[in-house]
Amino acid sequence: MAQIDTARFIADLQELRKIGEFKTGVHRPTYTPQDMESRRWLMDRMAEIGLEPSMDGVGNVLGKHKGPGIKLLAGSHIETQNEAGWLDGALGVVAGLALARAGLPVDVVACADEEGHYGGFVGSRSLTGILTEEQIDAASNRTTGQTLREALAGAGLAGLPRPPLEASRYKGFFEMHIEQGTQLENAGLRAGVVSGIVAIWQWKIVIEGNQDHAGGTTMAERRDAGLTAVRLLAAIDQEFPRHVGERTTWTTGRIALEPGAPSIIPGRAEILFQFRDISTEKLAELETVLRRLIQESNRREKCPARLEAVSLSKPAMCDHAMMACLAEAAEAVQPGCWQKMPSGAGHDSQYIARLMPVAMLFTPSIGGISHHWSEDTKIEDLELCMQILGGAAERFLAV
Amino acid sequence: MAQIDTARFIADLQELRKIGEFKTGVHRPTYTPQDMESRRWLMDRMAEIGLEPSMDGVGNVLGKHKGPGIKLLAGSHIETQNEAGWLDGALGVVAGLALARAGLPVDVVACADEEGHYGGFVGSRSLTGILTEEQIDAASNRTTGQTLREALAGAGLAGLPRPPLEASRYKGFFEMHIEQGTQLENAGLRAGVVSGIVAIWQWKIVIEGNQDHAGGTTMAERRDAGLTAVRLLAAIDQEFPRHVGERTTWTTGRIALEPGAPSIIPGRAEILFQFRDISTEKLAELETVLRRLIQESNRREKCPARLEAVSLSKPAMCDHAMMACLAEAAEAVQPGCWQKMPSGAGHDSQYIARLMPVAMLFTPSIGGISHHWSEDTKIEDLELCMQILGGAAERFLAV
Repeated sequence: MAQIDTARFIADLQELRKIGEFKTGVHRPTYTPQDMESRRWLMDRMAEIGLEPSMDGVGNVLGKHKGPGIKLLAGSHIETQNEAGWLDGALGVVAGLALARAGLPVDVVACADEEGHYGGFVGSRSLTGILTEEQIDAASNRTTGQTLREALAGAGLAGLPRPPLEASRYKGFFEMHIEQGTQLENAGLRAGVVSGIVAIWQWKIVIEGNQDHAGGTTMAERRDAGLTAVRLLAAIDQEFPRHVGERTTWTTGRIALEPGAPSIIPGRAEILFQFRDISTEKLAELETVLRRLIQESNRREKCPARLEAVSLSKPAMCDHAMMACLAEAAEAVQPGCWQKMPSGAGHDSQYIARLMPVAMLFTPSIGGISHHWSEDTKIEDLELCMQILGGAAERFLAV
Repeated sequence: MAQIDTARFIADLQELRKIGEFKTGVHRPTYTPQDMESRRWLMDRMAEIGLEPSMDGVGNVLGKHKGPGIKLLAGSHIETQNEAGWLDGALGVVAGLALARAGLPVDVVACADEEGHYGGFVGSRSLTGILTEEQIDAASNRTTGQTLREALAGAGLAGLPRPPLEASRYKGFFEMHIEQGTQLENAGLRAGVVSGIVAIWQWKIVIEGNQDHAGGTTMAERRDAGLTAVRLLAAIDQEFPRHVGERTTWTTGRIALEPGAPSIIPGRAEILFQFRDISTEKLAELETVLRRLIQESNRREKCPARLEAVSLSKPAMCDHAMMACLAEAAEAVQPGCWQKMPSGAGHDSQYIARLMPVAMLFTPSIGGISHHWSEDTKIEDLELCMQILGGAAERFLAV
């Protein structure tokens, strides 16, 4: 039975934390000097363990096991959101190192830009062969506006090859990650076996009215795009609960009224609305409800609303055999310490799942805090989940 | 009977239009070279007519009639919004010149910054003696950020006296202005006798929630400030029509959700909400309704909402004798061409009303367009309203 060096696992996490340190968290946006330093740090750790490290044309770091036979792939991403947490992403990568250090036949991967500084999942989309050169040409940094091409050149990655993963080489992909929610904490549990990663259907609702003076224009004369937006969102709030599943979420992230001044009737409203579920059928049903509510709004209101699909992702189901191994390992380490749960957030696994079976293990997030420098998980929970992951990897290899 | 030279009236408007010309409109923000040029142009016109022109410490231009006896005051403002219309404000000032040129005992005034580049009604507030030096110290340009003190120094006005108007000198103030709405146009009318200027009660509603990840946080766990905002605004939309008066308006100009990102549950919502009416009792009733709806929201919702008063102005009623003179004059010029109506927008008259009786005459606005360079009124309507104003001034002086 392979021995996981949990002390070294924690020590590696603490060492990596120093690169781009910000308060108790880290600031390592994709392709910044701090991000590239962390990738070089990772390649050194891989080499120490005896893996063969390489970095591809979008910054993905892959450490290949040199031995023969079928392998596991383990990892996550290593860059962070701005001024964000020390574990998000890094946890899964360093956990992969711990598996390889224990002598298991494991390749370790750190995918680039899962956090979306340049659009999101640049690395895992490239590793699965679905990222086109045109998409790279079109991408730019959401904060600085720098193009992805410029960033890749600046990081010394321009022109490097970016081969997809050899699916036949792997039996499956394990990704450990923080929960980014409070479900484990609230349930008093220490580990989450992920059943799948929900799909996100992101929409833009645009409502056109007439911009007018709020004093000179009577209520009857108005075409107030903001008022139509409020009525439509109230209708969604009324109707959606009749159609959602147990773990469906729906969110209005932005309501932009133009021009947005106190004495001007809004001439235009733009709403960012999304819903998430693990079932494609459920997502399709919710789209039907949304389209019906917009149709009804357009029948009733003076300001026409139109629906634009921003992005419609696919849910990624976790592999049942791998989930069973995680569950058995969790029971072996501490009976009753875990639960099965979907992931409401997106992860690299959702793309890697197109090539091989995947499974995810969630650690609790203290207070559910995520994408903030104060994000944290208890050390004993990190150690326990590392033991679970080790046991699961061994079990799955033995299947 | 005094003869109004309407041809010269239109010619003066066209000449003034050339100062700061922008497309078919003008760009004369307060205290810019263009604004100051227009004030000097006005002082020259006043001197031609035999009035005694002066400019005070905030840029108000007053042309005093040199004869004995009670006077009328007539005018408006001469600066404009950015890239705005040629008539708004300038119309009332040039109409005042036309009255004086006709030999009527009229002082002409151009109040500074009615348009609010430095807070609004700087001139009329100073002329009524309610503008304090501390308010001048605190004011700055809403576009450039330049302080009012710097602007006054730059315009050569620093240190000049700014005496209030001598109320005892005047029988009343006539202000001609464009309607800035479509009520006259829609009714096929050519003049509006203003009954009063509505008060604006401007509010900020702040709702505090929890910023969270839209995937990791279940619907039950959420404290979504944006959702509470939508429900509150929907309740206002339901309840307000049960309490409003015939000409009440209520407007939500902005709904700002923080941070305003597609996958983040809004942690804070800020709403700019206002209502307008000519009756203080009605305004007070609407405030009671609004407070009740917020109280109810706080009982029901997880995210507390609080109400902040931004500004609560007073309605200004027009003088009945002056309104009667306008109505009689309108009937004499063209029977049935006019209607009585409140002004939904604010005007210098609302402050000058604190010192003397006031009345306003509205000309139609083509398409209701205002605060935009394409704002316009038919020449024949301008001429007709000038005739009405002349007849009304004569009638009121004779009362």
